[in-house]
Amino acid sequence: MRVLGVDPGLTRCGVGVVEGVAGRPLTMIGVGVVRTRADDELGRRLVAVEQGIEQWLDEHRPDRVAVERVFSQHNVRTVMGTAQASAVAILCASRRGIPVALHTPSEVKAAVTGSGRADKAQVGAMVTRLLRLAAPPKPADAADALALAICHIWRAPAQNRLQQAVALHTSRGASGPAGPHTPHPSKGRTA
Amino acid sequence: MRVLGVDPGLTRCGVGVVEGVAGRPLTMIGVGVVRTRADDELGRRLVAVEQGIEQWLDEHRPDRVAVERVFSQHNVRTVMGTAQASAVAILCASRRGIPVALHTPSEVKAAVTGSGRADKAQVGAMVTRLLRLAAPPKPADAADALALAICHIWRAPAQNRLQQAVALHTSRGASGPAGPHTPHPSKGRTA
Repeated sequence: MRVLGVDPGLTRCGVGVVEGVAGRPLTMIGVGVVRTRADDELGRRLVAVEQGIEQWLDEHRPDRVAVERVFSQHNVRTVMGTAQASAVAILCASRRGIPVALHTPSEVKAAVTGSGRADKAQVGAMVTRLLRLAAPPKPADAADALALAICHIWRAPAQNRLQQAVALHTSRGASGPAGPHTPHPSKGRTA
Repeated sequence: MRVLGVDPGLTRCGVGVVEGVAGRPLTMIGVGVVRTRADDELGRRLVAVEQGIEQWLDEHRPDRVAVERVFSQHNVRTVMGTAQASAVAILCASRRGIPVALHTPSEVKAAVTGSGRADKAQVGAMVTRLLRLAAPPKPADAADALALAICHIWRAPAQNRLQQAVALHTSRGASGPAGPHTPHPSKGRTA
């Protein structure tokens, strides 16, 4: 499986391609950053992000795209740009029919370092080790994009099993998407 | 001037086309809503928004696109979808070289009702009156899209004069993008 990881951002959008399967050594295929000028207008910046992502998709033909899930709790000014850059990345992949997965920052950190609260340096160090690189990829956005791709490759088997189980369950005519563990409505009010 | 107003949203993206110039009666060319299914995955929804916006651009060939400026102070869950839908709208217009303007909700309300704190009903009533419609456009997202287009047509002359003044000033060799009012670096440390 070849995965393009995208750490979305308007000023720096990290991109990294990793190939491999869970349980085997992974290979880095490429890493980089799509940059746009902070003093350019929003529309031009979004077009530049689109062109950059398209180039990476054309060149590396990933089977999956993994994008960082954006939360709006963070910095008010940067989160809008991050959300908009992520929309462009998701759009580019979806237009080609490439499945897109979203992973939270803590899922990514937990996947590559074992701790959801690891710092940038720790993530960079583990990415370097897991991909057998000579030095940590720079800037941090590039390392984060590779971490996203690794996270996706390692989480994919579990996610696939989950999806298969849900599909199987649904096809058997269970009671809707909430699944079999939905508590009975009359319960939970016995206080 | 023909303006496509876009009230961005993932579930309902309002679109409205208005033609006219400031100081003259305005004409509604078209109004509608681009909808995507809430239970569909994000990538598909963004592709559907893109296709919808492209269709409106193809059919109505606007000179300008006016999009509501999204703030992240609002509802945490919906703001991300709004930001992502707006990114797609801005991208579609910019790819074609159509200038995009962003207006805040209060700028739009102030433009069409005279008050930045007007409610939905008031905006709908004024859009109906200004465009000489038989009834307020529904849903509210469609009326808001028309209000955005009207706001843009009315604000455009002032914005153009401002841009011309800035361009003239810059071409005369002012001290960089921050303008002439940048304080001298040695100042402000005299405590």
